[in-house]
Amino acid sequence: MTPYEALMDHQRETEVLGQIAGRLGWDQETMMPRGAAEQRGEELGVLEGMLHARRTDPRIGDWLEKADASDPAGEANLRHIRRSFERAARVPARLAQALARETSVAQGKWAEAREADDFAAFAPILTRIVELKREEAAALSGGGDPYDALLDDYEPGATGDTLSAMFDALRPRLIALRDRCLGATRQPAALDGTFDTERQLLLSRKLAVAFGYDLDRGRIDRAVHPFSSGSGMDVRITTRTDPADPFNCLYSTIHEVGHACYEQNIDPAYLFTPLGQGVSMGVHESQSRLYENQLGRCSAFTGWLHGQMADQFGDLGMDRDAFYGTVNRLHKGFIRTESDEVQYNLHVLLRFDLERRMISGDLAPRDLEDAWNARFEDDFGYLPPSASKGCLQDVHWSVGLFGYFPTYTLGNVYAGCLNAAIRDAIPDLDDHLAQGDPTPATNWLRDHVQVYGGLYRPREVIARATGSEPDEGPLLDYLEAKFGAIYAG
Amino acid sequence: MTPYEALMDHQRETEVLGQIAGRLGWDQETMMPRGAAEQRGEELGVLEGMLHARRTDPRIGDWLEKADASDPAGEANLRHIRRSFERAARVPARLAQALARETSVAQGKWAEAREADDFAAFAPILTRIVELKREEAAALSGGGDPYDALLDDYEPGATGDTLSAMFDALRPRLIALRDRCLGATRQPAALDGTFDTERQLLLSRKLAVAFGYDLDRGRIDRAVHPFSSGSGMDVRITTRTDPADPFNCLYSTIHEVGHACYEQNIDPAYLFTPLGQGVSMGVHESQSRLYENQLGRCSAFTGWLHGQMADQFGDLGMDRDAFYGTVNRLHKGFIRTESDEVQYNLHVLLRFDLERRMISGDLAPRDLEDAWNARFEDDFGYLPPSASKGCLQDVHWSVGLFGYFPTYTLGNVYAGCLNAAIRDAIPDLDDHLAQGDPTPATNWLRDHVQVYGGLYRPREVIARATGSEPDEGPLLDYLEAKFGAIYAG
Repeated sequence: MTPYEALMDHQRETEVLGQIAGRLGWDQETMMPRGAAEQRGEELGVLEGMLHARRTDPRIGDWLEKADASDPAGEANLRHIRRSFERAARVPARLAQALARETSVAQGKWAEAREADDFAAFAPILTRIVELKREEAAALSGGGDPYDALLDDYEPGATGDTLSAMFDALRPRLIALRDRCLGATRQPAALDGTFDTERQLLLSRKLAVAFGYDLDRGRIDRAVHPFSSGSGMDVRITTRTDPADPFNCLYSTIHEVGHACYEQNIDPAYLFTPLGQGVSMGVHESQSRLYENQLGRCSAFTGWLHGQMADQFGDLGMDRDAFYGTVNRLHKGFIRTESDEVQYNLHVLLRFDLERRMISGDLAPRDLEDAWNARFEDDFGYLPPSASKGCLQDVHWSVGLFGYFPTYTLGNVYAGCLNAAIRDAIPDLDDHLAQGDPTPATNWLRDHVQVYGGLYRPREVIARATGSEPDEGPLLDYLEAKFGAIYAG
Repeated sequence: MTPYEALMDHQRETEVLGQIAGRLGWDQETMMPRGAAEQRGEELGVLEGMLHARRTDPRIGDWLEKADASDPAGEANLRHIRRSFERAARVPARLAQALARETSVAQGKWAEAREADDFAAFAPILTRIVELKREEAAALSGGGDPYDALLDDYEPGATGDTLSAMFDALRPRLIALRDRCLGATRQPAALDGTFDTERQLLLSRKLAVAFGYDLDRGRIDRAVHPFSSGSGMDVRITTRTDPADPFNCLYSTIHEVGHACYEQNIDPAYLFTPLGQGVSMGVHESQSRLYENQLGRCSAFTGWLHGQMADQFGDLGMDRDAFYGTVNRLHKGFIRTESDEVQYNLHVLLRFDLERRMISGDLAPRDLEDAWNARFEDDFGYLPPSASKGCLQDVHWSVGLFGYFPTYTLGNVYAGCLNAAIRDAIPDLDDHLAQGDPTPATNWLRDHVQVYGGLYRPREVIARATGSEPDEGPLLDYLEAKFGAIYAG
């Protein structure tokens, strides 16, 4: 066996264990009996310990030194393995254990604090986690920018400075667009009524298939939070239902189908290698957002969906045009996950700036609530009424996810670029979407993005697919055109 | 860390991996998308490889040499680990791999041959498997009896000779009882009608809870074959439904609940140690059979069930006494899994003798069909009409399970002993069962058998619970009394 083969053999078993851990995670959210939580925690702890031991196995260093790749896939494999090995080696075991321990406690504290609307109850453990994350960032960065070192875990190659420049260009135009929409004379109506949840699931299943999700290699279940899980031949999604809000179920499903199709469409030869998964959070989110928004919420597709809704739930009391406005309606809210295409990114930009300041040491975690509210008022024009609708709304920081939030907006930026390229490549796409058929677009994404898995670097995937380096321009143009028209009245 | 602690640490991770493999097995039979089969096979292959490497880790030998146990549980742990390590070490890797490969092929061949009713198509691969199993048995036995070495995997401490003596005592009395029942003038009626499968599931859920299954630490799903899976706080069962045969669903559920309660009731301190699972197949089967038969099919309980059936499905057209006869009805059949309390053991005895002769070399696998039919005619008085209703009906031999069948009847023998002890200990048990409440009996089993997990040896568990060495007498007395009364007419 060559050193490369030995390395890939070792990696294959690691990837299999990772897939298995993912499957147990799915089980935990969908099927696991309530009383099994503690035992499952122990099982996952052992599995994570094994995974950590495998990822830091000193033989990897030896193999990497001697391994030669014979093709671009081999080079990409070595790049991924080297990056993961070097990152893992830089974090002392003591620190990794402390992070695992504190974040597992913090998640519970966060849930309690949010329930009680009490930021002060969460501040001490948040302070401890930020301390540990700063320590981790310093260890990972090797003298470079600490925030970049965290960001790199979710979006290899991205830096806080380049994202910051991109986000600074987004912010004023998004705020202006938001103000213009909310200030318009004619506002789209909110959806009213009660919608049978079984029929929501039926329709969301139909949408999943229309968007290319292969149910022979996946399944849809209900869970508290929608998510996608698994790779290759077994990629499962969850959705949720709310009788008052069928869009939640339908668009959560389309969103997760975007993630799932990315995984299902990766070249099967990459299974159980580092190339066998989506290459970054940003690129992953570009797929889910494009499926959900640029395709799922465009006028041609909602025209078709309007008929489907009527079939399932009876007359909606509005025509296709009004329905299109309703699907894309902006409202004055507080919650990121409930916001629309325009305001969503403002929510993310706020979090990006605050977490960057916490990691740099410029913002003390105990001052987070004040900083959040001040910034929220700047961007949205009003104050959150409570911490649970402000800085306590997201779980991310409590579980140690710093550097994760910006990939949401980066995904939207990538989706903007890809959407422009798709519209160029498929001029009659709307004719298909108006029949409920997004496959010309999803096939294009499959062939230009998804099939490559981890072969190219994140920005490179987008640049290769679109023919130019990604930037925020296409997203802004798209949003201004779309929402300018909806709120023209 | 002492050698004992190091050994138990290693073992703990092995047990966790084993639990995880079991959970994936459950997923495969209940939730997994069809197209994921191949990928799952690869995942399980990697996991089995890791498990094998952990079980044969040479450090185990060193630790075992130096380890001291400080209490009976420690001694039992060492005994289990030593046994498993020595067994694994005796089988050459080449042979283990050949067995894994051939049995995975053979399972498909068996299914095809059964479908085509063609024993000749199965004979060559069966011959190969018996060859490999004989090789394995010779390696395991170290000069002792080869069949005993295989049996020991499922029923530690049992031998072919002691089972044979027990079964020889059973056979004539079972045949006589069967003939008496089937020759009686008044025969119980078969159940007639169609029974809503959702209501079957509803009632079976109620039965599961009545028999002590904790749904906070378990769940019930439909699968092709009923089974129980998992240990500790996560023990799941499956059942199946047939509109024409509600007893299949109800009694499969009670049977699996017997297995599941054994696992759920083991001392939680034993979790992730070798004591954290049922001690043998025979003792496991004693629980499931006792729940299903001695409790679930007794006259007091079926009297209550008669009312439950009427509530769910309407008037059955028979009174309680007739219903009791119907539940326990014997018929002239061919299939082990469809047979009754009396004839079931005759099916097992036949397989035990034939597999013992194949392992000893006395019966060539190519002659199995003739030998099966001859023995079947001896014991049942008529010939199977086809191989699929004869020697091709069970999957066991195709997957290499030799030495497994006799544990079914051994379980019945143990159940006979335990039932006699329970009836002595709880004289008013029937009053409870007549109210649909088996808990005095299931609590007795929990406290006298289940809680101990793997602490005692199999026969020892039964002897401690009942106060005497187990033998076939109580089972025979019970069967003759029960069926003598039902078929008195």
